[in-house]
Amino acid sequence: MEFQPIIDDIAAVLAAERGAGRVASYIPALARVDPAQFGIALCTGDGRVCAAGDADVPFSIQSISKLFSLALAMRHVGDALWQRIGREPSGNPFNSLVQLEWEQGVPRNPFINAGAIAVADRLVSACPDARATLLAMVGSLCGEAVAFDEEVAASEAATGFRNIALANFMRSFGKIDNDVDTVLDLYFHQCSVAMSCVQLARATAFLCRDGAHPLDGSTVVTERQARRLNALMLTCGTYDAAGEFAFRIGLPCKSGVGGGIVAVVPDRLSLCVWSPGLDQTGNSLLGMRALEMFAARTGLSVF
Amino acid sequence: MEFQPIIDDIAAVLAAERGAGRVASYIPALARVDPAQFGIALCTGDGRVCAAGDADVPFSIQSISKLFSLALAMRHVGDALWQRIGREPSGNPFNSLVQLEWEQGVPRNPFINAGAIAVADRLVSACPDARATLLAMVGSLCGEAVAFDEEVAASEAATGFRNIALANFMRSFGKIDNDVDTVLDLYFHQCSVAMSCVQLARATAFLCRDGAHPLDGSTVVTERQARRLNALMLTCGTYDAAGEFAFRIGLPCKSGVGGGIVAVVPDRLSLCVWSPGLDQTGNSLLGMRALEMFAARTGLSVF
Amino acid sequence: MEFQPIIDDIAAVLAAERGAGRVASYIPALARVDPAQFGIALCTGDGRVCAAGDADVPFSIQSISKLFSLALAMRHVGDALWQRIGREPSGNPFNSLVQLEWEQGVPRNPFINAGAIAVADRLVSACPDARATLLAMVGSLCGEAVAFDEEVAASEAATGFRNIALANFMRSFGKIDNDVDTVLDLYFHQCSVAMSCVQLARATAFLCRDGAHPLDGSTVVTERQARRLNALMLTCGTYDAAGEFAFRIGLPCKSGVGGGIVAVVPDRLSLCVWSPGLDQTGNSLLGMRALEMFAARTGLSVF
Amino acid sequence: MEFQPIIDDIAAVLAAERGAGRVASYIPALARVDPAQFGIALCTGDGRVCAAGDADVPFSIQSISKLFSLALAMRHVGDALWQRIGREPSGNPFNSLVQLEWEQGVPRNPFINAGAIAVADRLVSACPDARATLLAMVGSLCGEAVAFDEEVAASEAATGFRNIALANFMRSFGKIDNDVDTVLDLYFHQCSVAMSCVQLARATAFLCRDGAHPLDGSTVVTERQARRLNALMLTCGTYDAAGEFAFRIGLPCKSGVGGGIVAVVPDRLSLCVWSPGLDQTGNSLLGMRALEMFAARTGLSVF
Repeated sequence: MEFQPIIDDIAAVLAAERGAGRVASYIPALARVDPAQFGIALCTGDGRVCAAGDADVPFSIQSISKLFSLALAMRHVGDALWQRIGREPSGNPFNSLVQLEWEQGVPRNPFINAGAIAVADRLVSACPDARATLLAMVGSLCGEAVAFDEEVAASEAATGFRNIALANFMRSFGKIDNDVDTVLDLYFHQCSVAMSCVQLARATAFLCRDGAHPLDGSTVVTERQARRLNALMLTCGTYDAAGEFAFRIGLPCKSGVGGGIVAVVPDRLSLCVWSPGLDQTGNSLLGMRALEMFAARTGLSVF
Repeated sequence: MEFQPIIDDIAAVLAAERGAGRVASYIPALARVDPAQFGIALCTGDGRVCAAGDADVPFSIQSISKLFSLALAMRHVGDALWQRIGREPSGNPFNSLVQLEWEQGVPRNPFINAGAIAVADRLVSACPDARATLLAMVGSLCGEAVAFDEEVAASEAATGFRNIALANFMRSFGKIDNDVDTVLDLYFHQCSVAMSCVQLARATAFLCRDGAHPLDGSTVVTERQARRLNALMLTCGTYDAAGEFAFRIGLPCKSGVGGGIVAVVPDRLSLCVWSPGLDQTGNSLLGMRALEMFAARTGLSVF
Repeated sequence: MEFQPIIDDIAAVLAAERGAGRVASYIPALARVDPAQFGIALCTGDGRVCAAGDADVPFSIQSISKLFSLALAMRHVGDALWQRIGREPSGNPFNSLVQLEWEQGVPRNPFINAGAIAVADRLVSACPDARATLLAMVGSLCGEAVAFDEEVAASEAATGFRNIALANFMRSFGKIDNDVDTVLDLYFHQCSVAMSCVQLARATAFLCRDGAHPLDGSTVVTERQARRLNALMLTCGTYDAAGEFAFRIGLPCKSGVGGGIVAVVPDRLSLCVWSPGLDQTGNSLLGMRALEMFAARTGLSVF
Repeated sequence: MEFQPIIDDIAAVLAAERGAGRVASYIPALARVDPAQFGIALCTGDGRVCAAGDADVPFSIQSISKLFSLALAMRHVGDALWQRIGREPSGNPFNSLVQLEWEQGVPRNPFINAGAIAVADRLVSACPDARATLLAMVGSLCGEAVAFDEEVAASEAATGFRNIALANFMRSFGKIDNDVDTVLDLYFHQCSVAMSCVQLARATAFLCRDGAHPLDGSTVVTERQARRLNALMLTCGTYDAAGEFAFRIGLPCKSGVGGGIVAVVPDRLSLCVWSPGLDQTGNSLLGMRALEMFAARTGLSVF
């Protein structure tokens, strides 16, 4: 299939709607992003990349980083990871404490905030310098260096009272082993990584390659782990709209409040769309539209 | 792919474990089912059927019926259906009232009990004789008459206090239009339908055929609706273990406490496994094992 | 203390505000009550009665009946009653199912709807004709016959979906022993009893007389049980405003959506105020004002 | 009434049961307290003190401090305090986050941990040196200097993850104005104050004197505020056992996990019992027994 015309067309159709949705405003660095941007990029399993729109503009990957930290934790910790984190959809807002209380400090899945903080705790235990290890992995996957945005990380830390509450709450149940500040430092930094659509499409290509590194073919995660990551993305990857994504798009996706969404067509390609305006579920409005158009035009849904 | 040897082998391997798990015992008709039974059947998109084990023994389809009532409601009510029922995973037990209270009587999805009762209410509004219409649809799909088990339906009604509570609770929010007893009569009857693995594999084949009737090719539901049914099965079809199923099996599935599970490989085949012993999530223990083996041996996962 | 001038004055001051608040409208018989009514009556421990305003107009006692059914159940069932019902404030709306689910069908206290339904179940078990027994007790306490309002009872039954849900929900936990319809028939009837302020002040005088019958001195409940009833009224008697009542009025109170509120000054007097307009917590707006004025002018608060 | 013989007798009867219950063990300083201690002291409105048992041994007042911080905040902040804190019983464990999430960061009452932290935040805003102000007030009330136990305060801070979570959670709703660490420093310190039964009986005597200082007669809080404090103690003062206390004891009480309980007989006396062993609700086992005996023998219940 020839993808370039398809994504060009999607970008063209959506040009008229640039600026729709509401840009995340809880920290200044996100609030000042130009809302009229839209980018799309895809990377096939054999490494070909197509892109359209603002596909080379770096943006704050935010919760998309949970995908990379989880992959790293699966690699370092293996199945023991699941003693601290569940694998079920949550049915509650991404930052809710209610379910965490019912379930005694074990987050429902690794993509809600509590779950990602629990993953960060596992990484702090497993890696001497977890921040550097994570950054190195992401950089290796996309083939070029990536960096934390220290302004964003500092803003997240300064305003992240809910996340501080979540971490301390899990700690009160004995489900966080490390110093809460160290764990949150990793978490706030991973959210601050800046990447472009092209970089993210490349960096997630291992998910459409049975876990094989997109550039050197090494094992990022096992085939079984890659399938599991895709399964988790489909059931839990898009806040409290996973059912809606499965319903309308039918692909494993992971979104972030920076307006990015990555999607995977297993055994075929990885895809990243970006537009800063969000809908009321916190997912990129145009990004979701773009993915829906992509699924409809290519027939590439898992269902 | 040659499926008969694969399912023969699965049946042979699992023979040693027949009887594992706990048979549902909340009504006598289920409690007295011989636990040492196991059946598996599949139906390809072009109509070929393979079967092994007790694949012709009828059993109580229970919650698998939610798939048929939902398909019927999508056909009769269209998108208006979603004004009364959500499409998100619930993160709570299948019969919980908590989330229903938070969400003012709108069930999270059509596969939790509250959602299926809301679907039944829509069918009562849409069809002059909803019980007969549903039975006729299922019979047509599997190519032979199916029937309610009146003993089971009566037992469900006599012990279904939680479901009566759910229905009245939704009614108190104005989200059920019809007489609660009439709605529940349909619901308890649909759960009582008795079918075999072979019949269920045939009856769900429209889900791997873009909605086309397995025998006459007519439109059961539209292609778009068929995809949506598969998406709902994957995210919400197996009680509070949807994440676990996606993780381990990677196929849209719908289970019932009678011990049956149907699974769909989109564009390829539908599948039904049955063994009465359940695990603690209420899903067939051997059924889940069988599906996991099937996915592993065929590589047929959507991820 | 001379009470007649005090209550005359309260009635006079509140005359200007008659009609304030919103009359309960969920059933026609309540909705058509003239909102501009206000009555107040008190009965001292030695049997003197003072009254002002519409103190002889009968109104629907609604949840005030929970006081009588509880007293009757304490007498018939004794401490075994508390195996089925808690004694703690609920912190949730009076008809919430959430807490009932957490606490496995055991209502938090006898004054939330679920608790009163559980009390009704105990009475159905203990009395051959619980409806008649309850009516006889209330009639005896106030010294004249009282009756169910069958129109109100029928309306409650026809619209009481939430209460039907609560009863079936408790039944699903095995916490209701009798047929749900029979239990609810008692509950809906007890709520329908029509009484005046004077009748209610008399009928609750046993609570300021250590449990002794106001007319014949016989033991209605023991002294210990009378104290407990007062304690329960103070902590749980006024829906989700028990703290507010304790704070502003400082007396054990039990309110109903008919607009009545009974209050007890232990060892001194019982009191009933009535005005149909409710505040947003479901308590009589002028009734609460009247009690606040009464407590302020007499200094009769338990605190 | 002659109280000395009554409390002597209570101490004598309970001597046989010293050591019952479980001593709080979440911090070392509490865990090493000798469980076989029991003290009781009372202070009448006119200043006479009786005591028995270990009534002069200082212990960690813990949550009893919430009474003093609330009184101080009522004095400094007035009714504006109630914009940040409710006055209703919670129906949930003292450190639950669930209800706090439902109610958007406004704690149900000032005696659950979240509420006391919100009170601490108000004090930090109102007083240049809130720690010193609080300590001075308590010292003045009991007539001798009291001090923080810095070991206890440090332990509370080092293990108080749940409280850190609560404070950050409220901050995330914009309901805490000050730096979370400063607020918690005050909270952890107030819990650490060490006082004896005699000191606490004296220090709470203003509650049985319409708010007048027990020694100099000055206004600690207004009469109205004193009544409200008593009302709050009765409805919310003893964790999730307020109903049980009202039922069995019938007096406004405030307990702490150090094993102390203060009780007030309005217009008569204040009372403090102490024994380190707790029941499963976190209240002193012998303390509760002692209060029950006191209420029974003196007839001094508010009901």
